[in-house]
Amino acid sequence: MSANGAPPPADDARERICELCRLFYDKGWASGTGGGMSIKQGDTIYMAPSGVQKERIQPGEIFELDSQGAVVTGPSHLKLSQCAPLFMAAYTLRGAGAVLHSHSLNAMLATVLDESASEFRITCLEMIKGIKGHGYHDHLVVPIIENTAHECDLADDLTAAIKAYPKAAAVLVRRHGVYVWGDSWVQAKTQAECLDYLFEAAVRMKQLGIDWTKPPLVLGSDVAVMGGKKRKLENGEAAAAGVGVGVEQQVVSDRGMGG
Amino acid sequence: MSANGAPPPADDARERICELCRLFYDKGWASGTGGGMSIKQGDTIYMAPSGVQKERIQPGEIFELDSQGAVVTGPSHLKLSQCAPLFMAAYTLRGAGAVLHSHSLNAMLATVLDESASEFRITCLEMIKGIKGHGYHDHLVVPIIENTAHECDLADDLTAAIKAYPKAAAVLVRRHGVYVWGDSWVQAKTQAECLDYLFEAAVRMKQLGIDWTKPPLVLGSDVAVMGGKKRKLENGEAAAAGVGVGVEQQVVSDRGMGG
Amino acid sequence: MSANGAPPPADDARERICELCRLFYDKGWASGTGGGMSIKQGDTIYMAPSGVQKERIQPGEIFELDSQGAVVTGPSHLKLSQCAPLFMAAYTLRGAGAVLHSHSLNAMLATVLDESASEFRITCLEMIKGIKGHGYHDHLVVPIIENTAHECDLADDLTAAIKAYPKAAAVLVRRHGVYVWGDSWVQAKTQAECLDYLFEAAVRMKQLGIDWTKPPLVLGSDVAVMGGKKRKLENGEAAAAGVGVGVEQQVVSDRGMGG
Amino acid sequence: MSANGAPPPADDARERICELCRLFYDKGWASGTGGGMSIKQGDTIYMAPSGVQKERIQPGEIFELDSQGAVVTGPSHLKLSQCAPLFMAAYTLRGAGAVLHSHSLNAMLATVLDESASEFRITCLEMIKGIKGHGYHDHLVVPIIENTAHECDLADDLTAAIKAYPKAAAVLVRRHGVYVWGDSWVQAKTQAECLDYLFEAAVRMKQLGIDWTKPPLVLGSDVAVMGGKKRKLENGEAAAAGVGVGVEQQVVSDRGMGG
Repeated sequence: MSANGAPPPADDARERICELCRLFYDKGWASGTGGGMSIKQGDTIYMAPSGVQKERIQPGEIFELDSQGAVVTGPSHLKLSQCAPLFMAAYTLRGAGAVLHSHSLNAMLATVLDESASEFRITCLEMIKGIKGHGYHDHLVVPIIENTAHECDLADDLTAAIKAYPKAAAVLVRRHGVYVWGDSWVQAKTQAECLDYLFEAAVRMKQLGIDWTKPPLVLGSDVAVMGGKKRKLENGEAAAAGVGVGVEQQVVSDRGMGG
Repeated sequence: MSANGAPPPADDARERICELCRLFYDKGWASGTGGGMSIKQGDTIYMAPSGVQKERIQPGEIFELDSQGAVVTGPSHLKLSQCAPLFMAAYTLRGAGAVLHSHSLNAMLATVLDESASEFRITCLEMIKGIKGHGYHDHLVVPIIENTAHECDLADDLTAAIKAYPKAAAVLVRRHGVYVWGDSWVQAKTQAECLDYLFEAAVRMKQLGIDWTKPPLVLGSDVAVMGGKKRKLENGEAAAAGVGVGVEQQVVSDRGMGG
Repeated sequence: MSANGAPPPADDARERICELCRLFYDKGWASGTGGGMSIKQGDTIYMAPSGVQKERIQPGEIFELDSQGAVVTGPSHLKLSQCAPLFMAAYTLRGAGAVLHSHSLNAMLATVLDESASEFRITCLEMIKGIKGHGYHDHLVVPIIENTAHECDLADDLTAAIKAYPKAAAVLVRRHGVYVWGDSWVQAKTQAECLDYLFEAAVRMKQLGIDWTKPPLVLGSDVAVMGGKKRKLENGEAAAAGVGVGVEQQVVSDRGMGG
Repeated sequence: MSANGAPPPADDARERICELCRLFYDKGWASGTGGGMSIKQGDTIYMAPSGVQKERIQPGEIFELDSQGAVVTGPSHLKLSQCAPLFMAAYTLRGAGAVLHSHSLNAMLATVLDESASEFRITCLEMIKGIKGHGYHDHLVVPIIENTAHECDLADDLTAAIKAYPKAAAVLVRRHGVYVWGDSWVQAKTQAECLDYLFEAAVRMKQLGIDWTKPPLVLGSDVAVMGGKKRKLENGEAAAAGVGVGVEQQVVSDRGMGG
């Protein structure tokens, strides 16, 4: 498949979901029947079934829904994913082209670093640029909603979170996982990869005693000095640096990662 | 293979054991000849041989036992798995359709987090729903038995543990690993995946200073507040919340994970 | 290949080394040209070349040595592995059928847990049974030799360590890696897998504050009590238990792991 | 492909970039469109496109540049990697044959262990020998430059770092990743593997409370004592040992790793 993200022919959406579910299983995002994936192609939404081994789904087992979320066709012996109302929220409120749900341990742990927080927040990491509309110095904010006994009961909170965080490309669910969407399956997947990296980075930085929620106490490249000389800022400068490049700063021109 | 868990034809059980042993090896559950797998098809029990590289087993090397555990056929140059009496305990006492044994480091570490505990206990994680009969707010309890010099000597304790914990789908063996069963190979495998996630979660939460044995000190989604507002409970409320959703609470309707 | 460890035909040794080097690369034991593998077939010793990407070695690039370590044939454009004298030590002093060298980070870290120790020591883990001649309650002891600027200069210390530790199946090299041997490639590989698990277990137990060098402070299965009752030993009993099942105890009948 | 590092035919460079990008993706170095790869063949430089899934690049999507960095041919629907000026710095200043860029979490974390440091420094690990011109006792030094909002703005600092550290085979970018080069794609890849190991080693040694920047407080093999006897140096000796084998010591004959 081409790297340029051109949409696959409509009849490829089923194959793509199966392929990506295998990939997500290998990443540990979809073990034990957890996780899931949906792609919108034209007005048709393709969605994985519920409660099955995601890595072994076959194209013929994918459900087809119309743009309102009503099932058009689907295998009679399977149930539609319980994530369906959650996936629909991203399609309806964000015009998403694809939505995925991951049970990654990194995502789960990111929600327990501070159990009283209703947001996951991180800044000054290159991978933040992989999330649409974000630059390196921005604070990436992902809302966290509380988990419920039944997955369908998450829909109201997820909807509220999507509305309350218009820049967010994802919603975390406490002690559960994350929902991520994008304009296409490519963007949903790559944003999910960047987010998973950021969740893991936060967990590992916590273990190393580093605060992942604030800019580092050194200035950016404009004051970088090469050749082994150390740069230590005075406390006053450091605080100013933190403020200056810090909270909710937006980049005007977002060029993403160009590696 | 279909995602819907329909049982494979009887002549597929040998192939399935070989495939799953390769998978478990890749997961680190069956390195160094450790671990193993057994499937029951009708009245016939298929079981891997002992002391061999599990990822390289061939279908012709699988033993066939009758429902009482007596060997019907098997390769003359190999020995039956020493796990046989342990696998039989799950078949006999639980009517299992498949049993697996994992040497996962996560399972081993879960048994040393508290060496004086005879149970592994965890609550309020979505993956708990992947274990039959359990909901998100339940306390998942897996009995831990002490290891013995010889694997066959575990049988009495394993049997006692299976009887003492009727809700358990698994028994941990201290500093050794875990036995997991299910109604089918699909359920045995997916439950093993959920358990391994939970064992790893406990170990990593311990390293992050988070108590995995108790509900978090915040209420559920009914009091969730979106939009960046923090929710901090008074100590009294928090304690009440812990009690209210806590110890041994059962969900009436268990719908499992529907991602 | 059969799981029963029957030796492959002589003309398979070259293929086997290539296959195992790919496997070891995937495990992280042979990245960056590090690590290596040798197999003895009859009186001929097959050995990988030096300083090349181990996962991309082709059968035609394997050197052939006689039983004294003299090169019989080999590709003119490559150098023999610098591990050659080290591999020969295991062939000569232990009658090994295969020797491998791993740069696993787990092995390296196991040598720095105590930089003043000349032994790695661990006890009461099931995977110890995967090392020939060892039971669950034994103390597995792997000598650690100091690293040198040039790999060939390790030979004297390695030889001394092999002689000084007749039960050892491996020698660790400080801040470097491990040499592991066995009667066959199967045993060398499975023992290397068990050892890597044990090295990782020690590192992770250290991070969890658990002493991996001593038996746990609870007695074995003969006093195990099921059903949630806690077992806590008095200090006196615990100490006695530690002594009783502890230092250098040998199992008479070693049946290995039978999972 | 042969293990001996012979350069592939010119028409293989495109295939090689695609293959290595898949490999780097599997290693976690190129997730979420991050990372990248370039190879020089004769006077032609081959470079991956920008902002695409690196593991899915096709040979026809690779850009061709002349030796001055001007695009000769490339797919009209894609943009050249934003790493281009950075890759060119290594080609121009070091005569590199290949350059790669990794977003490995290990590399990122290595830059935050000390946010005020402008160098990553490690010593006395075997894998240091995998970096050209370095021996076991050397201090491997990798300059760290500060990250910028846009990748192209790193070029000046990267150029300055390459000039200031003539022995370095890589430059780290704070909270971002690492650029690594070599005389060939083989050397760029194997050096990147060795560096990633060293970054991970530093992070894990920090978590274990071990100083990765200084030689260990024991002497080398010339004073190694086998057979279980402990070696503890007097403080004076230890300090002397640290100095003697320590800072910026060079090996005259660098034979690399010969495993």
